[in-house]
Amino acid sequence: MHLALYLSDTGLHAGGWRHPDAENHDPMQLSTWLSLVKKAEDALFDFAFVADKLSVDDIYAHDIATTVQYRPGYARPEPMALLTALSLFTHHIGLGGTLSTTYGEPFHAARTLATLDHFSAGRMAWNAVTSTNDGEARNFSKQHHLGHQERYQRAGEFIDAVHQLLASWQPEARVVDKASGIYVDAQKVSYTHFCGEHFQIQGPLTVAASPQGRPVQILAGVSQDFKTVATRVAEVIFTVQPDRERARLFYQQFKAGMVGAGRAPASCKILPGVMPIVGATRREAEEKRQLLDELVNPLAGLSFMSASMNYDLSQHDPDALFPDIFDRISGSKGRFEYVIAQARKEGKTLAHVAKTYAASASFPVMVGSAQDIAEEMISWVENGACDGFVLMPADMPTSLNDFADYVVPVLQQRAAFRTAYEGTTLREHLKLPLR
Amino acid sequence: MHLALYLSDTGLHAGGWRHPDAENHDPMQLSTWLSLVKKAEDALFDFAFVADKLSVDDIYAHDIATTVQYRPGYARPEPMALLTALSLFTHHIGLGGTLSTTYGEPFHAARTLATLDHFSAGRMAWNAVTSTNDGEARNFSKQHHLGHQERYQRAGEFIDAVHQLLASWQPEARVVDKASGIYVDAQKVSYTHFCGEHFQIQGPLTVAASPQGRPVQILAGVSQDFKTVATRVAEVIFTVQPDRERARLFYQQFKAGMVGAGRAPASCKILPGVMPIVGATRREAEEKRQLLDELVNPLAGLSFMSASMNYDLSQHDPDALFPDIFDRISGSKGRFEYVIAQARKEGKTLAHVAKTYAASASFPVMVGSAQDIAEEMISWVENGACDGFVLMPADMPTSLNDFADYVVPVLQQRAAFRTAYEGTTLREHLKLPLR
Repeated sequence: MHLALYLSDTGLHAGGWRHPDAENHDPMQLSTWLSLVKKAEDALFDFAFVADKLSVDDIYAHDIATTVQYRPGYARPEPMALLTALSLFTHHIGLGGTLSTTYGEPFHAARTLATLDHFSAGRMAWNAVTSTNDGEARNFSKQHHLGHQERYQRAGEFIDAVHQLLASWQPEARVVDKASGIYVDAQKVSYTHFCGEHFQIQGPLTVAASPQGRPVQILAGVSQDFKTVATRVAEVIFTVQPDRERARLFYQQFKAGMVGAGRAPASCKILPGVMPIVGATRREAEEKRQLLDELVNPLAGLSFMSASMNYDLSQHDPDALFPDIFDRISGSKGRFEYVIAQARKEGKTLAHVAKTYAASASFPVMVGSAQDIAEEMISWVENGACDGFVLMPADMPTSLNDFADYVVPVLQQRAAFRTAYEGTTLREHLKLPLR
Repeated sequence: MHLALYLSDTGLHAGGWRHPDAENHDPMQLSTWLSLVKKAEDALFDFAFVADKLSVDDIYAHDIATTVQYRPGYARPEPMALLTALSLFTHHIGLGGTLSTTYGEPFHAARTLATLDHFSAGRMAWNAVTSTNDGEARNFSKQHHLGHQERYQRAGEFIDAVHQLLASWQPEARVVDKASGIYVDAQKVSYTHFCGEHFQIQGPLTVAASPQGRPVQILAGVSQDFKTVATRVAEVIFTVQPDRERARLFYQQFKAGMVGAGRAPASCKILPGVMPIVGATRREAEEKRQLLDELVNPLAGLSFMSASMNYDLSQHDPDALFPDIFDRISGSKGRFEYVIAQARKEGKTLAHVAKTYAASASFPVMVGSAQDIAEEMISWVENGACDGFVLMPADMPTSLNDFADYVVPVLQQRAAFRTAYEGTTLREHLKLPLR
């Protein structure tokens, strides 16, 4: 089983930062993040990754006020700078950074990723995302976010361009012969000449070949447009799967798609997000969950869900049945297909769904003792539903500490998780081929 | 007198890396850079800065081979990642990073700069450049580099947008009141609503107000287009001035321009680049310079000068009089106006000028004993030619060590340079107002 940490200073449950045990250290201080990553490293996680968003959400009621007032996470370090820093004070754990393919340039992305792979001695991963909503577009001189299909088309090309740029320097190109005056062996550097519809890039890159050759490629999603790209290039998939059965279907279909594309199924690890709430007893865990849920402000949910959908929910009555709006949303379509259908089937109100969505962002919440949770996780892997999980701690640092201190040892006793790091690079942790 | 270090792993003289004492450590290793920055910090420099280029030069003969073979510096860390790392292992020295306004986005730049200002506890500066040539354009899906005037127009707007984004969060906006559920005081975060010709940016930024409010604004150049922007926004100017008299004219004109624009002359420090070659005696220094010059491959000069001009010099006979091409170049126009006129006046060949240009990039070379060099530097400041210098070490680490160990103490004896850091932020080192 592989384990990744979704690194958040406040936890992923919208009520997490209000829990009495939440520490809420200043996110602009490196120490806030470092202590969490070191905990994950002590627990032998494969990697930690940092998500990203390129705006303060203001899709709901076209204003930032609701977002900044009720939702933490909008005054944070830029992820690549943060990961650079974390790479220098950790030694084993992999580190994943998010860079948008919609609002970035492949040349910049490749340079940063190659540099961080050097600084971390081969522990970097890149979570390529297509960004979500018009708020982000408006920070990049555009009125509207690209359509779903177009931005995945661009993403596929962007990723190919980065991969090709990363291959432009061969290892040991630098010869430094003072006598002849030859600094680099010109035979070991080549133009990239990438020629796509969105990007034309001559290359070469200006960074030497990195330890992993290519940082591990993460993609996050669930939609068909996403799968078209991911089947071809992803090495880790972070996905929202509400239950084991749906996860199993996604897993089987995706791996079959990889085989169809000529790839070995083991060359991509599928890691659904999961939010465990651990208690000394199941009852204690259920009480904690209930407390967290009570701490969610419904406005936080409406702000968050509007942003994820790229659709302003303030125009609907929060106490009426969830509106039939699937065709009008354009953000993370894949995850809302299920959320909306389920809400309408069960007769849920908008306010109710928004609160639930804010609680766990539709990731499954596993509530129970360490034993319960370890067993449930093992059952997902044994049933072919995933290759491991992305841990989404509800509150910080308690949820991470509980998982590391109580659930990981059970997984190790069951021989479901490593008891020591065996390799040094992230590719080795994940048993992925070199590139 | 203010002192900055132009941070280079191999030194700035094209023959520097071939000098017998040159260490040529691997530039992908952080330790290579850190030892140099620490040396500058021990010598109480105001700041060190990292230049940047977004392509491997291939203007000369339309090929990268000449460049990578004969010129070091094309397989290096991405500057912002490097500066993040350096900020964590230094404590006093300011750190300047280069970001291009032609191939970047203000939102990305502002996020990174604000983050690094936090990580460095207020020691960051931003060297905004407009990039130089078509090789860079071709790594960003463009055929040609923007014209000189257009890219400075864009630069001015880019810088304004970054400054406004950096002001979107007020200090102490984060209140974290668990009881009321208020995380941030929404009164302390505001939209940016930047609306220019090139950029429309809604904001706010997603990083909290940084220690300096705004990292120190560096601009590098000498042309009229450059001055139009710099007079208005620059706080440090890095400039090429071949001699004291020309530096004095530039200084007087520039400061008068600032007054005309309603700024206090002291609110921008003008720091010409200088390459000192220090010897125990003047004779020893002259011998070192001669050796360095002999180590320059003329092809390195032609590759470097073609790239700086954005003009392929391979079409001219290297042994004929320097051609009259000022109207056909589009790169760093300001510095070549003088170089070309001087070469033609003195009847120099293309090959000769290329070799000289590669040696010091037309920055003045000060050759002599520590005493000689300190006196010359003091005379520039006393004659109103500058507020200090950017040290461009010829070879590494010797030139930096010689300057730090022998010239700085003389400057201190003459009360021309600090004997201890007095403040903690770069603005304090440079005596610049808070923003």
